[in-house]
Amino acid sequence: MLTKSSLEQINPPARLLMGPGPINADPRVLRAMSSQLVGQYDPAMTEYMNQTMALYRQVFRTNNEWTMLVDGTSRSGIEAVLVSIIRPGDKVLVPIFGRFGHLLCEIARRCRAEVHTLEIPWGEVFDPQQIEDAIKTVHPRILLTVQGDTSTTMLQPLEQLGEICQRHQVLFYCDATASIAGNPLKTDLWHLDAVSAGLQKCLGGPSGSAPVTLSDAFVQQVRARRHIEQGIKSAQHQDGEDEMIYSNYFDLGMIMDYWGPERLNHHTEATSMLFAARECARIIAQEGIDVCVARHQLHGAALDKGLSAMGLELFGDLSHKMSNVTGVIIPEGINGEQVRQLLLNDFGIEIGTSFGPLHGKIWRIGVMGYNARKDTVLTTLAALEAVLRHLGYVANEGAALQAAWDHYGQ
Amino acid sequence: MLTKSSLEQINPPARLLMGPGPINADPRVLRAMSSQLVGQYDPAMTEYMNQTMALYRQVFRTNNEWTMLVDGTSRSGIEAVLVSIIRPGDKVLVPIFGRFGHLLCEIARRCRAEVHTLEIPWGEVFDPQQIEDAIKTVHPRILLTVQGDTSTTMLQPLEQLGEICQRHQVLFYCDATASIAGNPLKTDLWHLDAVSAGLQKCLGGPSGSAPVTLSDAFVQQVRARRHIEQGIKSAQHQDGEDEMIYSNYFDLGMIMDYWGPERLNHHTEATSMLFAARECARIIAQEGIDVCVARHQLHGAALDKGLSAMGLELFGDLSHKMSNVTGVIIPEGINGEQVRQLLLNDFGIEIGTSFGPLHGKIWRIGVMGYNARKDTVLTTLAALEAVLRHLGYVANEGAALQAAWDHYGQ
Repeated sequence: MLTKSSLEQINPPARLLMGPGPINADPRVLRAMSSQLVGQYDPAMTEYMNQTMALYRQVFRTNNEWTMLVDGTSRSGIEAVLVSIIRPGDKVLVPIFGRFGHLLCEIARRCRAEVHTLEIPWGEVFDPQQIEDAIKTVHPRILLTVQGDTSTTMLQPLEQLGEICQRHQVLFYCDATASIAGNPLKTDLWHLDAVSAGLQKCLGGPSGSAPVTLSDAFVQQVRARRHIEQGIKSAQHQDGEDEMIYSNYFDLGMIMDYWGPERLNHHTEATSMLFAARECARIIAQEGIDVCVARHQLHGAALDKGLSAMGLELFGDLSHKMSNVTGVIIPEGINGEQVRQLLLNDFGIEIGTSFGPLHGKIWRIGVMGYNARKDTVLTTLAALEAVLRHLGYVANEGAALQAAWDHYGQ
Repeated sequence: MLTKSSLEQINPPARLLMGPGPINADPRVLRAMSSQLVGQYDPAMTEYMNQTMALYRQVFRTNNEWTMLVDGTSRSGIEAVLVSIIRPGDKVLVPIFGRFGHLLCEIARRCRAEVHTLEIPWGEVFDPQQIEDAIKTVHPRILLTVQGDTSTTMLQPLEQLGEICQRHQVLFYCDATASIAGNPLKTDLWHLDAVSAGLQKCLGGPSGSAPVTLSDAFVQQVRARRHIEQGIKSAQHQDGEDEMIYSNYFDLGMIMDYWGPERLNHHTEATSMLFAARECARIIAQEGIDVCVARHQLHGAALDKGLSAMGLELFGDLSHKMSNVTGVIIPEGINGEQVRQLLLNDFGIEIGTSFGPLHGKIWRIGVMGYNARKDTVLTTLAALEAVLRHLGYVANEGAALQAAWDHYGQ
C-alpha cells in the first residue's frame, strides 16, 4: 500500500513561488524552524513567547498588550477573533469585494451572527461613505473587513473606517493576511479593535501560525465570556457571565491566559511555528516595517510596469491595488493554464490562477516577503515574455525588462 | 520597547525533554521542516499530501480513506472531530479518568452536546462493563474516550469498547495523542470511528499538526452537514441537509474536500508542519509501528525498574500504565519543584510537574519518540539519583542504574 516514494526523504522541487501565496519562505525562517525544542514552560520558551508578542506589536503598529499567535493557518486567526467576539444573533456588517469577504460571512454565520453584507464588483473597493451609510442602517455590533483580498488584488482603504466605527460604537476587525508588511497597516492610528494575519504572504514564512492583535475594548468584551477548563480550574477562577463560545481551541480568553503572566495551560504551543513566526517578525524589525512596505511597493511597481510594457492589461482599480499582488488579464487566444504549466515545468516559476467570477480570466502574480526582490521580478518577466512569445503572443520584445530596469533607475 | 534579545536569532538552550511532552523532536523531523516550500497545488505538494495519508494509515493501523492532518495542535484534532460530528443536543458519554477526559467534556459542551460522564479516581481505568452499563442507561450518540491520559499516566483498554459501541449503535471516538506509537492502537480491529493524535509525544515531532482518521460510517454522518463556501461554490455543489457546524476551520467535510481528489480550496496547508508530520510517520514506517511500540515498552520499563530500585513509589494502577510516561510519587520531605529546578538548571533535563488532584504530589517522567532510548533513560536515572542524594534522600546508591542495566540484559 505504501509506495516507495512515501519512504523517501522530503525533497521538494526548486520553485520560485510568484503566485498570491504561499511564497518561498526566507531561508532564515526555515533555519529557525529547524531549532531543537524546549519545554512548554521552560524559561527560554516563555521568553520567546514574550519576545514574539513584542515583535508583532511592531509589525501591527500597535501598543496592544494582547498581540500573540493562534496555532493554525491564517484562517484560524480569523475564526479565533470571530468566534470569540460574536454572540449568537449579533449583527455584523461585511463589505465584500472578493473571496475573503465571503469567507468572513461564512465564518460569522457559523458563529450564528446575523450577517449583513455590502457587495461591489470584483476589482473595486468601497468608499468609506458607503460603509458608514450601511452602519447607520444596520447598526451592527462589529464591522468585519478584509484589507487586501488576493482574489481581486484590491486594497480596501481603512484609514477613515476606525473613526466611523468609534462614532457609531461598532467594533472594527480586519483580516490583514494578504496585505500586512506589504502595505501600510496602522492598528492603533486607525482605531482597529482586532487584526489577524498569517505568515505565508509578505511576512515571508510558511502557513501555519496566525498573529493577532486585540484592543483593550475588544479584550474586555471577550473576557465577559471567560470560561476555564474544569481539569485545571481552581477556586480563585471566576467564569464570565455571557454564554460560552462555540470553540475551546479558538477561545481567545483562554489563549490570553496562556500567553499572559498566569500561563494557564491550554494547547501545547506549536514551538516550531512560533520559532518561524518570531523569525519572520525579527527580520522585519531589523529591516524596519516601513522599509519593508516600501520594498514591496518598489518591486510590485517594477513588475506592473514590466507587465504593462509587454502589452498586458492589469486587472481592477489600479489606484487601489495591493503592492504585492497583481491581476493580469489573460490575452485573447492564449490558454492561461498552458502558460502556467510552461512556467512551472520549464522555468520552475509558479504564478497564480483565479477563482469565482475571475476564473480563467486573470493570472495573479505576487511579489512578496522574501520574494519581493529585483531578481525575482526580472526573472519572472523574462520567463513570462518567453512563454507568451512561444505561444504566438506579440510581447513587445524586451520592453518589459527595460520598463522594469527603468523603474529601478538603471 | 524591543529588547536587544528580541533581535537575536533563535538559540534555545540544550535540553533533554523527559517530561510528558513535548519531547525533543527527531533531528530528521527538524531537517524536513527546513525544506523550502512549494505551491499549494503543486503536483509535488499534492503527492506529499497523498503520501502523508498513506503513511498515517500505517500509524493508525487502518484502511480508512480519510486519514489526514488538521492544521493545529493535538487539541485542534479533537475539536475538529467533535465539532464536525456533534449536533446541538446530541448525547455524548465521556468516561473521565484524568484531565483530558475533562477536556473532551469541555469541547463537547461548547458544541452544545448533552454531556454525560463517568468518573473514577485519578490513577485508575474503567472496566468495559462500566462503560457498557452507562451506554445502556444514557443511550449516547457518541462515546468519547481518551486512550492514554498523561495527567495520570493511565492507559484505558479499548479493545472491547468498539464491539460494545457497534452493538448499541454508538459512534466511537478516541483521543490517542499521548499514547499513539508508544502503545498498541488498532483503529480498524477495535472498530474505532474516529481517532485523533498530535506529533509531540511518541511520534517524535513538534506540536502543531493533528493527524486524524475517520471511518466510513463517521464520514457519512459528517457529510450530512456538508456546506461549501460561497466564494468557491459552483452549480454542481449541493449542501447537506443538517444544520451547518459551528466552525469553518474545523469542518472535516471541507477538510476532506481539500485533501480529496476535488482539492477544493479551504485553508492554505501548513506546508512545513505537513513536512514534519510526514517525516514522523516515515521514520515510524521504516522502523515498523510494532517495533516502535516495543521500543517504548522496553525503555519505559527500564525507567520504571530503575525508579523503583531507587526506592521511589510509582503512581497509579501499574497494570494499566502507558509505556511512555510514569508518575513518580514525590518522597516525603523532598520539595518536588526544587528537584525539577536542579535537573533543569544543572543537568539540562526537564521532567514534568502535575496538576489537578495530583498537583505537587507526583512528577511525570516521559520516555517517548526520539527520546525512547537507553542513553536518555540511564542519564535521567543518574541525574535524578544525584539530585535526590544531594537533597538528603537515601537513594539506594547505584541500584537504579543497575536495575535498568539488568532490564536491558547487561
